[in-house]
Amino acid sequence: MSREQRRAVDEMLRRAPQGFEPLPVERMRAGFAAMMSAFPVPDAVVQTPAELGGRPAILVGPAPDAPARPGTILYFHGGSFALGSPRTAMALTANLVVRTGVRAVSLDYRLAPEHPFPAAIEDGVAAYRNLLDDGEDPAGIVFAGDSAGGGLSVTTCLAARDAGLPVPAGIVAFSPGLDHTRSGATMVTKEGIDPFFTRESMGHTGAMYLAGQDPAQPLLAPAVHADLTGFPPILLQVGTNEVLLDDAVRLARRARDAEVDVILDVTAGVPHVFQAFTGTLDEAGQALDRAALFVTQRLAVTEPAAPAVR
Amino acid sequence: MSREQRRAVDEMLRRAPQGFEPLPVERMRAGFAAMMSAFPVPDAVVQTPAELGGRPAILVGPAPDAPARPGTILYFHGGSFALGSPRTAMALTANLVVRTGVRAVSLDYRLAPEHPFPAAIEDGVAAYRNLLDDGEDPAGIVFAGDSAGGGLSVTTCLAARDAGLPVPAGIVAFSPGLDHTRSGATMVTKEGIDPFFTRESMGHTGAMYLAGQDPAQPLLAPAVHADLTGFPPILLQVGTNEVLLDDAVRLARRARDAEVDVILDVTAGVPHVFQAFTGTLDEAGQALDRAALFVTQRLAVTEPAAPAVR
Repeated sequence: MSREQRRAVDEMLRRAPQGFEPLPVERMRAGFAAMMSAFPVPDAVVQTPAELGGRPAILVGPAPDAPARPGTILYFHGGSFALGSPRTAMALTANLVVRTGVRAVSLDYRLAPEHPFPAAIEDGVAAYRNLLDDGEDPAGIVFAGDSAGGGLSVTTCLAARDAGLPVPAGIVAFSPGLDHTRSGATMVTKEGIDPFFTRESMGHTGAMYLAGQDPAQPLLAPAVHADLTGFPPILLQVGTNEVLLDDAVRLARRARDAEVDVILDVTAGVPHVFQAFTGTLDEAGQALDRAALFVTQRLAVTEPAAPAVR
Repeated sequence: MSREQRRAVDEMLRRAPQGFEPLPVERMRAGFAAMMSAFPVPDAVVQTPAELGGRPAILVGPAPDAPARPGTILYFHGGSFALGSPRTAMALTANLVVRTGVRAVSLDYRLAPEHPFPAAIEDGVAAYRNLLDDGEDPAGIVFAGDSAGGGLSVTTCLAARDAGLPVPAGIVAFSPGLDHTRSGATMVTKEGIDPFFTRESMGHTGAMYLAGQDPAQPLLAPAVHADLTGFPPILLQVGTNEVLLDDAVRLARRARDAEVDVILDVTAGVPHVFQAFTGTLDEAGQALDRAALFVTQRLAVTEPAAPAVR
């Protein structure tokens, strides 16, 4: 009874303590980690500590007896660029691994306010470069992430392309944050409908990441300012209850304008990163299955990834 | 080598005789049937003549030894509302059946100019009502179609809802025509890029279907005028080379605004109904696989379809 499930998830979130109140960042991080630990991680994965581009990471592989497929998902966790770690996104990461048989490397990129923009993107590019230096084929790598990490999956690709690296085979972004100018119409129209984010809560952590820098630039507002020419296919999944809905809508438009394959996959009546609610919400597992098909289709393509164009 | 494949398909279409020149409609129909017969139909289906809502149809089932799944795809062929038949779309219909295990019923709806708007939609609603009268659960029925038939998959749902019928479980539209006012920006920006349609060629058959009626109404321009409230989830697949691109883009926006699940699945550099080019274009089979997953996800949902809202 999925309509009832969507309502139940909304009510649950409205009862939860706000994770983004103006508290000291360490308390916010602890609260966020506690909240995210409620999402069950599938058993059929093996987690191994790793290092990538000089940063800690967690390698998440399919269980030894499970079907495996070549390739690597470079995963960026969510947390408004100030919170979270590979562990807080493990339910999502592991679900992608289980559904695809493809291993993931989830990156513990540097966080604001200690390390504002562009530290996280620099870490993303360094991690990707590390994979390439290890001999991995860019056609075997897919970037994925949720929320702020969905944003990083896009901006890391942008920075990698502009640094002359080949682009990966695809990008999967769950409810990505793609506009630090906060100019999407849904920032206003979904206020109060979004049970999770408010403009105020986003402003608090956003200011930590910006640290006074101008948000009107491609790496901070790709939905508004990025030229996506040469990008690999992109899958954007987002809910209609989100203030971030228009971030995905506008990035999809920019992708079409740049002749980039793009799937804008919108689920009505669901909240930010609804894919985490597997077991509670039928739409979560179905969306993850669509994301898994996208990943395996991208990794099945034998064509070398498009060269960087500038 | 899919980039080369996309170029090859474009060149092939530019060499082909235009199917929509201002010729007598019977010659256009013969030319269209000849063109479409070039697309190979998968072997693993069984075709049976049928009748649905007083119109001929072809029942397309999975082969007896192939996996079968309950449900029915009500398929609407393309052909600008004036050409085509279930046979001309059989490659697409059969590919959906093979990939899902779900049977399809492809409707031979009445064509313009002999039967202008709204004859085709009336036939679609009669066929759907026939399925329901036979005891089929609307939650087990998905509408699908290509080009004009993609448009009919949407407008038949609109007319059915407004007639008080329950809506089907989902809609799959390949390169749908959704705006007889021809007001999409891509009607201009993709002219010459689209190797198939021109504004002039569309005007010729469009006038047959309109027969002088005002196109500015929901059943003739759903991308501009339809309220999609209460619709089931919609999958729209379209190529960036199409003058019809904005028909899908604008319908997706209207779906989001009406709180309807909608996937806008855009492939760059491919033409109208590129899904027909299986075997020639890797993107064709991949798009059909995504459509098949959408269909099976819709039929897996146990929730009764949403009631009609007006």
